[in-house]
Amino acid sequence: MATTYTTAQIAELLERVSNWGRWGKDDQRGALNYISNEKRAAAARLVRSGETVSLALPLPTRPARDNPTPVTHLMIRSGDIGHPLGSWGCADYFAIEPHGLATTHLDALCHHFYQGKMYNGFDYTEVDFQGAHKCAIDVARDGIISRGVLIDVPRLRKLEWIEPGDAIFPEDLEAAEQAEGVRVGEGDVMLLRTGRFKLRRIKGVGAISGLKMPGLHASCLEWLRERRIAVLGSDAVSDVLPTPYEPPLRMPIHTGSLVMMGVHLIDNADLEQLAEKCARESRYDFMFSLLPLILERGTASPANPVAMF
Amino acid sequence: MATTYTTAQIAELLERVSNWGRWGKDDQRGALNYISNEKRAAAARLVRSGETVSLALPLPTRPARDNPTPVTHLMIRSGDIGHPLGSWGCADYFAIEPHGLATTHLDALCHHFYQGKMYNGFDYTEVDFQGAHKCAIDVARDGIISRGVLIDVPRLRKLEWIEPGDAIFPEDLEAAEQAEGVRVGEGDVMLLRTGRFKLRRIKGVGAISGLKMPGLHASCLEWLRERRIAVLGSDAVSDVLPTPYEPPLRMPIHTGSLVMMGVHLIDNADLEQLAEKCARESRYDFMFSLLPLILERGTASPANPVAMF
Amino acid sequence: MATTYTTAQIAELLERVSNWGRWGKDDQRGALNYISNEKRAAAARLVRSGETVSLALPLPTRPARDNPTPVTHLMIRSGDIGHPLGSWGCADYFAIEPHGLATTHLDALCHHFYQGKMYNGFDYTEVDFQGAHKCAIDVARDGIISRGVLIDVPRLRKLEWIEPGDAIFPEDLEAAEQAEGVRVGEGDVMLLRTGRFKLRRIKGVGAISGLKMPGLHASCLEWLRERRIAVLGSDAVSDVLPTPYEPPLRMPIHTGSLVMMGVHLIDNADLEQLAEKCARESRYDFMFSLLPLILERGTASPANPVAMF
Amino acid sequence: MATTYTTAQIAELLERVSNWGRWGKDDQRGALNYISNEKRAAAARLVRSGETVSLALPLPTRPARDNPTPVTHLMIRSGDIGHPLGSWGCADYFAIEPHGLATTHLDALCHHFYQGKMYNGFDYTEVDFQGAHKCAIDVARDGIISRGVLIDVPRLRKLEWIEPGDAIFPEDLEAAEQAEGVRVGEGDVMLLRTGRFKLRRIKGVGAISGLKMPGLHASCLEWLRERRIAVLGSDAVSDVLPTPYEPPLRMPIHTGSLVMMGVHLIDNADLEQLAEKCARESRYDFMFSLLPLILERGTASPANPVAMF
Repeated sequence: MATTYTTAQIAELLERVSNWGRWGKDDQRGALNYISNEKRAAAARLVRSGETVSLALPLPTRPARDNPTPVTHLMIRSGDIGHPLGSWGCADYFAIEPHGLATTHLDALCHHFYQGKMYNGFDYTEVDFQGAHKCAIDVARDGIISRGVLIDVPRLRKLEWIEPGDAIFPEDLEAAEQAEGVRVGEGDVMLLRTGRFKLRRIKGVGAISGLKMPGLHASCLEWLRERRIAVLGSDAVSDVLPTPYEPPLRMPIHTGSLVMMGVHLIDNADLEQLAEKCARESRYDFMFSLLPLILERGTASPANPVAMF
Repeated sequence: MATTYTTAQIAELLERVSNWGRWGKDDQRGALNYISNEKRAAAARLVRSGETVSLALPLPTRPARDNPTPVTHLMIRSGDIGHPLGSWGCADYFAIEPHGLATTHLDALCHHFYQGKMYNGFDYTEVDFQGAHKCAIDVARDGIISRGVLIDVPRLRKLEWIEPGDAIFPEDLEAAEQAEGVRVGEGDVMLLRTGRFKLRRIKGVGAISGLKMPGLHASCLEWLRERRIAVLGSDAVSDVLPTPYEPPLRMPIHTGSLVMMGVHLIDNADLEQLAEKCARESRYDFMFSLLPLILERGTASPANPVAMF
Repeated sequence: MATTYTTAQIAELLERVSNWGRWGKDDQRGALNYISNEKRAAAARLVRSGETVSLALPLPTRPARDNPTPVTHLMIRSGDIGHPLGSWGCADYFAIEPHGLATTHLDALCHHFYQGKMYNGFDYTEVDFQGAHKCAIDVARDGIISRGVLIDVPRLRKLEWIEPGDAIFPEDLEAAEQAEGVRVGEGDVMLLRTGRFKLRRIKGVGAISGLKMPGLHASCLEWLRERRIAVLGSDAVSDVLPTPYEPPLRMPIHTGSLVMMGVHLIDNADLEQLAEKCARESRYDFMFSLLPLILERGTASPANPVAMF
Repeated sequence: MATTYTTAQIAELLERVSNWGRWGKDDQRGALNYISNEKRAAAARLVRSGETVSLALPLPTRPARDNPTPVTHLMIRSGDIGHPLGSWGCADYFAIEPHGLATTHLDALCHHFYQGKMYNGFDYTEVDFQGAHKCAIDVARDGIISRGVLIDVPRLRKLEWIEPGDAIFPEDLEAAEQAEGVRVGEGDVMLLRTGRFKLRRIKGVGAISGLKMPGLHASCLEWLRERRIAVLGSDAVSDVLPTPYEPPLRMPIHTGSLVMMGVHLIDNADLEQLAEKCARESRYDFMFSLLPLILERGTASPANPVAMF
């Protein structure tokens, strides 16, 4: 399999995976439409023990090599009180760039453009200084609740983590499915583990840069479309970086998912605890929930996705 | 029933409802301990149709009479692109005071003090300029997933809403249970509807002030403790305001819930759509999920709680 | 004198006062060009006693009727220290919308557009989500130091303040000059006192709204242009509000000054102490300094202008 | 001369340079008291040509090795307009940590503590989560206008810059005075050039870390006190870093100036253009102005100091 592509080849590939018009020309929800009520009810029926695992990093409040734009967290009122009999409260404040490289977040479909268009052909001018007038994050205001499936690539390859810069191919996805006894299907939230945060914990925060990441090779796009996933998540940014393709397209998984297929992306999820849980239980699917903040016109939401077993 | 209390009476009442030490002297999770794995699994088994309803207001980005501290939402990059073949992204920024009066949020147990102490006797000095060193919002990092129960007081009283300043008593809670065919029990998330946001939509944003709210009378505290609820939520702030009690204690439901019982509070939830759904289905319990942002040392999290039927 | 204008009359007036091209087609500094080195040196020669008076309000950190967007001021580190022998520091943070209605600030020429253009014919598209690519606040990075002249209209009219909504006409300016024994000339910073902050102190912060202000009538524009002022400042917003003219033009002094003449504006200066000083000394000109923050691409700077006698 | 000190020696030294009580026990302005009206009037008389030079870096809006906490600068409204005849404005927003390592700013006296005290013996607890209740930046609200003197150490040593980590001694200060034909005296603003920003421009932003800086050796403190300077400024942070003294005291120039002498500090001034101007004119004194924002309870102000010749 070719591991690189020309710009023309990627353009053809992106054309092939398009879902534009599939849910009507006004649709702004994209592949979230695959999550029917019945799909959600079935996800709830996956619950057995009731145990939950968070898939989020804590909000990153300190600058780091992989976190150049930390969350500002400051107190408005601290605990000091005036009256010994009185009751009083404390309060805080935070300022956040949700797309931060160490922030677990959900990308809205409007986050990415290709040839001047976002998902379903909406024009890039729909995102102006006021925010996104189409495909903003609030299209998911009722929550993303579905079946989640973990694809654990380091486990498949018997590694602690996939090295930054290494690509993952469709045959890896299929081999992982087989090894795990699971099959990714319509409406699923597919979670791709690369072991990035295992590497970070062992080697230290400074060990990895936001510019070098393991991730899916562009050749996975057709596979993802055929499986009809609703959402793609990763402990990195889904794309392999630096890009192995001909410039100027740098992130064809972002382009193919957000723009062409209408697949929302979860970046920087922490999948370490989930991977341990799945391995321990020999079970790789679970009820998945992500409840984004309703930020009208927003391009993303910081999130705390949770898997329930 | 006395509708007012002296400071001494409230002090006695608060003493009676204390859960300090119930889950060990180091416990920081309070009544979240009532939500066992089995409780969560049972909540999942409540799901039938798979329909979901959001219980959150959109993040309030405009100043209003009931929103003096709006969320700042600004663009970092808008849609303008450089290269016609290129792909590019947009991004935004927001700054928030989660305890804002028109922000749906979860109060951490550290948010409130009584006689210099927070839940379980931790000292107020545990909250300093760096944030909360005890009972911060991240104690709920694995999510709050349980059975939710709606107590719809306006429906019981055949009103559109409860007037700001009006109190709700234990007998109202019991009458609502009976009318709804439901019983609040151990580990439940109890959601109290006052109709505040119906009033707001009909009368306009300027009609209500953050200083006048319908809510629970202090005499409900013992009832809440006996029922062993895990979390209390409301479309207002749970307490009736202005306070009908002897100063200086202004919000005994906050004090009793957060400080004495260790019950997390959800303020400013939007329960209108939920109430319609419950009435339509003659069903007042459901699977409830709230997945707070993991803000270590944080005193609250903005949230988008979701009910699933 | 007509106190109202049709849109066509204002359009003609704005055309007449244009300075576009006067300092070359690439100029971005406008009437700041009137402030020559010699003008600055002459301003320094006005100094006699060396006394200084600040013309700024404190940064407004609390919400108020005339301050819907307060400055957020929070601590990063407070005074608490670790080591009794040690030395340590505290630090803070602020977030500001410099154009706030109770913030003393300097408007950049890019702040305002007319018929899609800013000063000197630059297109409105030069201000995009990244900020102002032309006529940003940093054109004044070397400081605005010149002769300042106070025009004290309430004193002329023997009033404590000019009522919100009342207009000031060219004959008022000339009468004030005569009464004060001063003449506004080339390169001067003209400061127009309406007494707004005397009213605010006596009647309370809630007494005045940002929508009703005393200010110059549009008929003053030609006078200002003939006098070749460099900067216009006021304790309100220079324009009279609500507008007495035919819609849609609301603020012809802003339009005429910023867009047509290239005159920077100072809004919300506190001129009370200055007025007392001038009256006491029977002297209405002084050395004026305003040193804006160098915010490249910025549309304004909060400022603390100072008069020196 | 000893280039290192024990903690005990520094403690003695700090005791010797104390100005506590010199201007009364309630004084919060410290050595700003040296700037009399007559001093300011004399500074104005230094002006000849009227030329001005800014001593500020632009506000640093991008992350860099020497700027881990960049200023957030975002647009509230951009240039896009609605009505072709209409006039409209744009506006922006910024969020800043004034003590940032690449931000030209004035430290308030409250910024630093020694043995639990700030200037004049005020307790560290005077700075709490609400800000500084003593010695805040607004003590300088009427502006710092005085005689400025540039001490150009690289020029004296015939270097382009002083290497990070190198110390400057009292004999350097005296030699520079002699070479420049100037003498630092009572009420002066002394500006110490190390050439840091020449190094930065030639070697690139990444070349220097905030942890290694050229600066004054602690042995300069007595010299500074004898000369009765009002303010000390530098293109670095005045102290040499890393500290050559016995721990825990890291920044004795900060401690000695802010805490003991009550001398405000200017950090990160850009003195390159000033140095060229002074060399060209063989003149090292000038009228100096710094007009801090009036941030009540603030610990610093970003600033654009200006020298006038």
